[in-house]
Amino acid sequence: MLAEEIKNYNVHQLRELAGSLRAEMVEAVRENGGHLSSNLGAVELILALYKAFDFPRDKLLFDVGHQAYAHKLLTGRSLHDLRKPGGVSGFPDPSESEYDAFIAGHSGNSIAAGLGYCAARDIRGETYKVVCCIGDASLANGTALEAIFGSESKPKNFVVVLNDNGMAIDKNDSALYRSLSKATARRRYRKFNAFLDRRFRTTSPFGRRLRRFKYMVKGWLNKNYFFERCGFKYVGPVDGHDLSELVGVLTEISKIDEPVLLHAVTVKGKGLAEAEGDPTRYHGVGKNFAPSDHSFSTALSRLLCARAAEDGSLVALTAAMADGVGLAEFSEKFPTRFFDAGICEGAAVTMAAGMAMGGLKPVVCVYSTFLQRAYDQIVHDVCLQNLPVVFCIDRAGLVGADGKTHQGLLDLSALRSVPNLRIFAPKDCAELADIFDYVRETGGPAAIRYPNGYCPNLGVRQKISDYYLWETMSEGDGLVVLACGARAVARALEAKRISGLKNAQIVNCRSVYPLDCRLLDYFSRRKILTFEEGYESGGFGAAVAEYFAENGKAVRIRIVGAPRIFVPHASAQQQAQLCGLTAQDLARKMQQFDAQE
Amino acid sequence: MLAEEIKNYNVHQLRELAGSLRAEMVEAVRENGGHLSSNLGAVELILALYKAFDFPRDKLLFDVGHQAYAHKLLTGRSLHDLRKPGGVSGFPDPSESEYDAFIAGHSGNSIAAGLGYCAARDIRGETYKVVCCIGDASLANGTALEAIFGSESKPKNFVVVLNDNGMAIDKNDSALYRSLSKATARRRYRKFNAFLDRRFRTTSPFGRRLRRFKYMVKGWLNKNYFFERCGFKYVGPVDGHDLSELVGVLTEISKIDEPVLLHAVTVKGKGLAEAEGDPTRYHGVGKNFAPSDHSFSTALSRLLCARAAEDGSLVALTAAMADGVGLAEFSEKFPTRFFDAGICEGAAVTMAAGMAMGGLKPVVCVYSTFLQRAYDQIVHDVCLQNLPVVFCIDRAGLVGADGKTHQGLLDLSALRSVPNLRIFAPKDCAELADIFDYVRETGGPAAIRYPNGYCPNLGVRQKISDYYLWETMSEGDGLVVLACGARAVARALEAKRISGLKNAQIVNCRSVYPLDCRLLDYFSRRKILTFEEGYESGGFGAAVAEYFAENGKAVRIRIVGAPRIFVPHASAQQQAQLCGLTAQDLARKMQQFDAQE
Repeated sequence: MLAEEIKNYNVHQLRELAGSLRAEMVEAVRENGGHLSSNLGAVELILALYKAFDFPRDKLLFDVGHQAYAHKLLTGRSLHDLRKPGGVSGFPDPSESEYDAFIAGHSGNSIAAGLGYCAARDIRGETYKVVCCIGDASLANGTALEAIFGSESKPKNFVVVLNDNGMAIDKNDSALYRSLSKATARRRYRKFNAFLDRRFRTTSPFGRRLRRFKYMVKGWLNKNYFFERCGFKYVGPVDGHDLSELVGVLTEISKIDEPVLLHAVTVKGKGLAEAEGDPTRYHGVGKNFAPSDHSFSTALSRLLCARAAEDGSLVALTAAMADGVGLAEFSEKFPTRFFDAGICEGAAVTMAAGMAMGGLKPVVCVYSTFLQRAYDQIVHDVCLQNLPVVFCIDRAGLVGADGKTHQGLLDLSALRSVPNLRIFAPKDCAELADIFDYVRETGGPAAIRYPNGYCPNLGVRQKISDYYLWETMSEGDGLVVLACGARAVARALEAKRISGLKNAQIVNCRSVYPLDCRLLDYFSRRKILTFEEGYESGGFGAAVAEYFAENGKAVRIRIVGAPRIFVPHASAQQQAQLCGLTAQDLARKMQQFDAQE
Repeated sequence: MLAEEIKNYNVHQLRELAGSLRAEMVEAVRENGGHLSSNLGAVELILALYKAFDFPRDKLLFDVGHQAYAHKLLTGRSLHDLRKPGGVSGFPDPSESEYDAFIAGHSGNSIAAGLGYCAARDIRGETYKVVCCIGDASLANGTALEAIFGSESKPKNFVVVLNDNGMAIDKNDSALYRSLSKATARRRYRKFNAFLDRRFRTTSPFGRRLRRFKYMVKGWLNKNYFFERCGFKYVGPVDGHDLSELVGVLTEISKIDEPVLLHAVTVKGKGLAEAEGDPTRYHGVGKNFAPSDHSFSTALSRLLCARAAEDGSLVALTAAMADGVGLAEFSEKFPTRFFDAGICEGAAVTMAAGMAMGGLKPVVCVYSTFLQRAYDQIVHDVCLQNLPVVFCIDRAGLVGADGKTHQGLLDLSALRSVPNLRIFAPKDCAELADIFDYVRETGGPAAIRYPNGYCPNLGVRQKISDYYLWETMSEGDGLVVLACGARAVARALEAKRISGLKNAQIVNCRSVYPLDCRLLDYFSRRKILTFEEGYESGGFGAAVAEYFAENGKAVRIRIVGAPRIFVPHASAQQQAQLCGLTAQDLARKMQQFDAQE
């Protein structure tokens, strides 16, 4: 395996390998889509880490996870089927390889997890080293900061490599980053660095000792009090693409047992001119580097720009996913009313609550999977105070290639019980606008969830209102299909055709809370099948079952949703097959239920 | 109102007022129980804030909330019925007073909320000042750190008062705190401070200008790079009990528009000798300063000490609530296997995940309400990797006097859908041990939830096992009552007696996930009433309803749980009445359901 072979490579060979790894990555992403810019930036860092440390005996934790493709290639994994069923995941995953020491889909976890590893090692009397490779954007996340500041003494044999590319997923405006960039730019550093490099570029044993001294001197010159106070010996900044320097310094670090933070400066998108020029555009891409199609995000973008033009109190917040959720245009048109908190979902939501207290009408736009990180802030800061904050939850339901760390299957079960929060799921992009206007007119906190990718426009029958919370999409006096969300409604209509159940009634249940009790009472003597792209437990179907159970009514309900598993990477359609949620699956379940005694 | 009158008070009068406010607080807490140490420590700070700023036009946000009693007294609220139904809440709450600018039950939210207020103010062209009064323990929380580091430029007219009492709820070992205490201890500060004080203790206009200069000099001498880099002008440290100094410096601060962080050093428990001597013991107390009775926490303490003695891989973690959850003894007996993360629930859970990856068997002990803050870490770091982490969830259900910010009513609905996580609710303390042993034998992540306060020992009929997931507590062939959790089972047994329904069957449903499907199938032709102390939606009752809905079976189910509201402060028993969850309520509902057609 390359991971072992490169122990014997010299710097020249490593440089060649870096080139071929990059070529392989670019090819794989062109073929399958994936994360490009960050992965390209971390190649030399990863090579030097493998040269200096002894993985998997030593533990390597990535954070963010989308910088690890080179690590996957070194450890015998092909990117050929990247993010496809049975192929490798886009993120480190211990169930995929013993070289992946920890899961890394959500940012900010590596330092706390690494500290946990160290504690376990010391209690069990083991001796391995723990290395966290963390991006500067992840470092700004609350869990990362909690762990860094957690104790002034850090465990021995604990190394944090800060992959500082000067950007979060998007740009990075945080105080932390500014502090880092000041260290890098400091003149005395640059001058002295050049001097030291001239003096100590040697490979003799004496030279090696001198080089150790060089990094001590550099570290002392550039003393970063921030990290020193947190118990780390600060080393750097080093050029994160200079293999000679990286191998040298990491080899030195691997020999000492003090906790070290190595500050490496890298270029996002390194080695691919297009990506270096526009790393945000190439952060995550589809096949042939095409930007992914996100019709709901695009619709949200248009909607927010239009409403913001009419209403000066509308502000939009996100957490390092402005492009993904459709806020790029808004941020340009209304820069003073746009707020990107970085990978800080908790602070973004609490800030929105403060804005609402101050008289604004904030819209928080995040992916379903990342909103999980602000659950308490939604409960305690927004809903308890009953504030008019609207959550636009993108990537709800099955998310496709990003796989199990990124699924949006939990939002309904997590949010449905939170007092004061109303929850909606539009059937198409046009209805997103209707619902958005409706919740803003009627006040209070609300969540609107929708999937990514293309969704057909299904047409309006009854615009949402207090009276018409739900709408019937296809009439019938037999089986009632209560479909919740865009994909569910479209598939339910198709399933009616496939199943031949002409008397099935298809209802667009766009309001998850409150339910349309008038319609539910009306349906209570018929068979009711609920259908959603979310976990079967605790979601929309559960809400319907609960409604009838409040009064002890015996109603024949069948809940259809995703099984309680972490759904792995594949296309969203393949994932729907895996979960039994395609139109064909639904048609079969409708037929079964209809025929049931 | 005092808040306005004290504008005309001189320092001598303020000092007298501080004394009487303290006396009033101590009396109120002796009468009603409450938080004592932190509230005693913040009296002078609050008086000086009211003297210098113009609340409620200016906005005052507390964080932690349990330092605000003096603020309540100043703003016309009596502590006579503190934490009793209809009386004032133990925490700031905008629905109680316009002087409470933000909710403050969970720590760490003030800076993000304050930034939100500032953004709203600036966008709306208003001019008030925003003041966050934050305890050092809260500052270590991820949301607070995210907000502090969020941007290198902070808004104008934004003041953060750091109430540095050198302790979290318990002791404080964080790097942040050490950095603060170093600043305080610095000798040149102390010497120069005394010099400046001698020189500039004057009240002439010239003297005031000199005093402004004095704080500039002090700030410069003690330059705290940490806060300066985050965009704050750092002022301090000042003695947080010296009213003359506090009023002076805060008045100066109120006149400048730069963002300022004022570092005030206070003594937790100030003014009550017992509390100063043992602030942790007097942090939160019951009537007559009695330590509250927590039988489950005590049982957990015994249990963990016993198991840890047998198993060297057992480690325990908490987040600044070691005493509350029953880890005090454990921390003394097994100091190397005990970890208190501070108010950092997220980092604690991720660290536990890292420990589990490293071969340990971590037990995370936190209150239900605070576990909400680690929801994503539970999903992404623990359950996705299927790690053997046991969550001991204390204060689940109705919590009594701490009120709506602290209710433990959401854990079941939030956790029940998370793949791989098993969930249990013991009926009494003895069963806590049985379940704990059972989940550790059978592996994987698990949550065990239980309430605080006394619970009777109900005796064992069938020890928990894969076969006997649930146990029948009282036989009968009529109505089935599925009771989940200690209070529910005890009340269900009582309700059977009260209702006279001798053929009701009472079942202890100690496993919420998985359900006891064997028993459920067996009951499917009878009326089933579910009973739990958690929200009616998404919890145990919903799980039972879903089970039958998976197969489209028409079963007569009635779910009894808490309504979807934030339940205000009162005794836990009064809260049960409010929610319709007493034994009498249950008996009536059983009779109704039994008689229903």
